[in-house]
Amino acid sequence: MVRSAKIPGRPCSVAASLQLVGDRWSLLALREILFGNRRFSQIARNTGAPRDRLAARLKNLLADGIVERREYQAARFEYHLTDAGKDLYSVLTAFIAWGDRWAVDQPSLFLEHYGHRLEAVTTCAGCGQPVDPDALHMVSQAPGWSLSGPDKEANA
Amino acid sequence: MVRSAKIPGRPCSVAASLQLVGDRWSLLALREILFGNRRFSQIARNTGAPRDRLAARLKNLLADGIVERREYQAARFEYHLTDAGKDLYSVLTAFIAWGDRWAVDQPSLFLEHYGHRLEAVTTCAGCGQPVDPDALHMVSQAPGWSLSGPDKEANA
Repeated sequence: MVRSAKIPGRPCSVAASLQLVGDRWSLLALREILFGNRRFSQIARNTGAPRDRLAARLKNLLADGIVERREYQAARFEYHLTDAGKDLYSVLTAFIAWGDRWAVDQPSLFLEHYGHRLEAVTTCAGCGQPVDPDALHMVSQAPGWSLSGPDKEANA
Repeated sequence: MVRSAKIPGRPCSVAASLQLVGDRWSLLALREILFGNRRFSQIARNTGAPRDRLAARLKNLLADGIVERREYQAARFEYHLTDAGKDLYSVLTAFIAWGDRWAVDQPSLFLEHYGHRLEAVTTCAGCGQPVDPDALHMVSQAPGWSLSGPDKEANA
């Protein structure tokens, strides 16, 4: 679905993701759509995004298959998340949790699921354990790139 | 630690987080530092970031307490993650997982912890259940803002 684009630097899914959704207005637009605010005017107002930049971001998200437009009355459209768009919830919940801890004095909103407040944490589906950032090691699988950077030959 | 900044639109920890780390070069720099590549020249090479923009981003991350500099020999510095910076692992693992599924043909790297491949998923620490984006409901706690947007009075 999503286009693959040329990425500078290390081949990496973080970089590939950020090519698609790596700016503030895109992520804030996705936040509003996840919250259920689907109309352009709502998204513009609630994000504070300049309308022209927001329109450009939504056009890209549409082209990349992250949102889709549905007509709710003649020639009036709403934005919905595709499966790829919905799957970005994990990025948004991670930003909410991080921001609550580090970027604001007091949370201004929370997410609820199954009748209680969501406390989003990252765990490993393989072992069920929470993730300790000090225990992470990156393993590169990209030809020509090791953990520390490009191999000399690839870089020549 | 991190400065609080004026945020347009809805008061929200996503927006507050993105004020601090909501651009591609900042997040890619944090990725490299998390991977263990701590020197400016490594970070520039491995992210592909223009050096002047990278320097500006690192300066902000330093001022905001997300990275810190440590001298490793006279007048030579390395970047390390502070506790706030380490805590962004959840954003980076979410981008890796999303990008692996939606943005690349084939993953170019993976993270390992405790000797096996990390499969990062978002779960709720309260109930231990994985998060279903369709089951999420936002609850606003910001005065003057409801789920759908600003109250009329606050908006007048």
